[in-house]
Amino acid sequence: MKALVYHGPGEKAWEDVPDPTIQAPTDIIVRIDTTTICGTDLHILKGDVAAVTDGRILGHEGVGTVTEVGDAVTTVAVGDRVLLSCISACGRCSYCAQGLYAHCLAEEGASGIGWIFGHLIDGTQAEYVRVPFADTSVYKLPEGISDEAAVMLSDILPTGFEIGVRNGAVKPGDVVAVVGSGPIGLAVMMTVGLYGASRVIAVDLDDNRIEQAKSFGATDGVNSGRDGWQEDVRKLTDDGLGVDVAVEAVGIPATLQACTELIRPGGHVANVGVHGHPVELAMQDLWIKDVTITTGLVSTNTTPMLLKLVAQHKIPAEKFATHHFSLEQMLDAYDTFGRAAETKALKVVISR
Amino acid sequence: MKALVYHGPGEKAWEDVPDPTIQAPTDIIVRIDTTTICGTDLHILKGDVAAVTDGRILGHEGVGTVTEVGDAVTTVAVGDRVLLSCISACGRCSYCAQGLYAHCLAEEGASGIGWIFGHLIDGTQAEYVRVPFADTSVYKLPEGISDEAAVMLSDILPTGFEIGVRNGAVKPGDVVAVVGSGPIGLAVMMTVGLYGASRVIAVDLDDNRIEQAKSFGATDGVNSGRDGWQEDVRKLTDDGLGVDVAVEAVGIPATLQACTELIRPGGHVANVGVHGHPVELAMQDLWIKDVTITTGLVSTNTTPMLLKLVAQHKIPAEKFATHHFSLEQMLDAYDTFGRAAETKALKVVISR
Repeated sequence: MKALVYHGPGEKAWEDVPDPTIQAPTDIIVRIDTTTICGTDLHILKGDVAAVTDGRILGHEGVGTVTEVGDAVTTVAVGDRVLLSCISACGRCSYCAQGLYAHCLAEEGASGIGWIFGHLIDGTQAEYVRVPFADTSVYKLPEGISDEAAVMLSDILPTGFEIGVRNGAVKPGDVVAVVGSGPIGLAVMMTVGLYGASRVIAVDLDDNRIEQAKSFGATDGVNSGRDGWQEDVRKLTDDGLGVDVAVEAVGIPATLQACTELIRPGGHVANVGVHGHPVELAMQDLWIKDVTITTGLVSTNTTPMLLKLVAQHKIPAEKFATHHFSLEQMLDAYDTFGRAAETKALKVVISR
Repeated sequence: MKALVYHGPGEKAWEDVPDPTIQAPTDIIVRIDTTTICGTDLHILKGDVAAVTDGRILGHEGVGTVTEVGDAVTTVAVGDRVLLSCISACGRCSYCAQGLYAHCLAEEGASGIGWIFGHLIDGTQAEYVRVPFADTSVYKLPEGISDEAAVMLSDILPTGFEIGVRNGAVKPGDVVAVVGSGPIGLAVMMTVGLYGASRVIAVDLDDNRIEQAKSFGATDGVNSGRDGWQEDVRKLTDDGLGVDVAVEAVGIPATLQACTELIRPGGHVANVGVHGHPVELAMQDLWIKDVTITTGLVSTNTTPMLLKLVAQHKIPAEKFATHHFSLEQMLDAYDTFGRAAETKALKVVISR
């Protein structure tokens, strides 16, 4: 088969590789119908994720059709159309037992982390993929949900919802600032209404992205490049004391620090961004402020719920699909996604 | 009357001052029967708390007898024996409405903070004190509770319980590390059993304090001055993955950083310590770890519950009382408490 293979920092190829085979009775083989590219794939290609080694097939998002099932698999059958999740879960370890699939302790994830596709095992940017722990890691797709909507549930939508909205403990009436209006920030904005936020403030350096955010659920926008922008955010709260929840969706020190300043006493900061460096927090101000700061890798334990709402067209997941490619155009898809600032790509949809 | 008056950094005196009087119909006047000294008072005396100005009577803990009540007061009467809380609450603002009395917005607390005694208004290290918002800020003492047990409920026990145990979301079976075995750390250890912790690890640099901690609820102790001490803590967890909850009870960068390293994925860090400086957190490791970090000033909304358990002798609050003084010996009490490392003072009890 053909697959997108990582060959060390800066090197990748769409090339011939052996077809995957069942290795454990809990495995299935899935033919990829649709996949996409994540910002994390770009990080890997830069060499930022040391665990990914030469020869690894990338990708951790996908929708496909089951072509083969291991002897122990009971919940999916050949021919089923399934959503592949960025997180694989054994369903048995102490972390799976509490729904924290991101930290599944099973051996496939040698580092004890549920994100293994395109990381510790071969991924979904290929014609076929081996899926371990199938019974607890794939989701049969309901009728009426398109591939391009479903594939947003492999990672981006549950990430925004679980790590931004749910960790942020958003509750009815809250004013929520989302710092960063890229795809993950937009996923937060698209799902924050589920908990009844009264106001959703998109914060970004780019006015175009702020404008776009308003079609993803933002009610207001503030450009963080302007002097006094934090005061502008505070003015959007009823009493000027700060927002109830600030979601960090960038992954640099300045944006996390800003989140801790934007929230009111008793407020929450939900960090979603992937950080590469330490961050200095103003504990001399924060110790007394009754703040809660959370971090997390998505566990995808809300995927079934989100799938239901997407199928009911209550969450317009397909809005993320800005560009379309065939599998054979994989390298073009990478090029378009890699130049997102210029191409305005949110998610590129790559289908067979 | 006599009172302990702050006269700028390093200066204090036990001196004659005017008796307090009712200033608002919601005030009461209380004769102090027992008071104590807090580490915060020592910070104030060093000049660390700029809001405290020359002439301020210090102290935010106390037990006393009501001698006068304002016209609007309905729940306490002259002669009642009451617990004074370190937090004053108007009972009406948006923060009081959610039980976050620490951030009461009433005018007495010009900075919008519920800690006003010995800070923004005159405090409890005196023969008499004016208590604002009496109906929502004092607690009638039940029978069978001594002054020296009750005064530990003005601040230290609710602080340890609310900001350490409750913010840390301790749940049955948890392994909890308490970093810092001073009075606040001990208050955490004394109350963490209420949520069924299976193991309570006292971490400190001083073996004597660790030994003492074992009589306050710690089941294990680790000296953080030893090489590899963090591994020793991890070994005390069932699977070696780290503790469920780490409580920071010191207030310096190294101890907060240690807490973030001691917890397992999905764990909680509850910061109780008062910080004077920024703290650098290893977000490059923490972003993926599903951690929750909390801070807070006590709201004393658990005071009635803790009072009940102390009155039932289920929490041996009086154990904190290591030294006893009369009000006239106030300066001696400060001297003993200020040299706690040497005198082994936990809380000094100062009674009329």
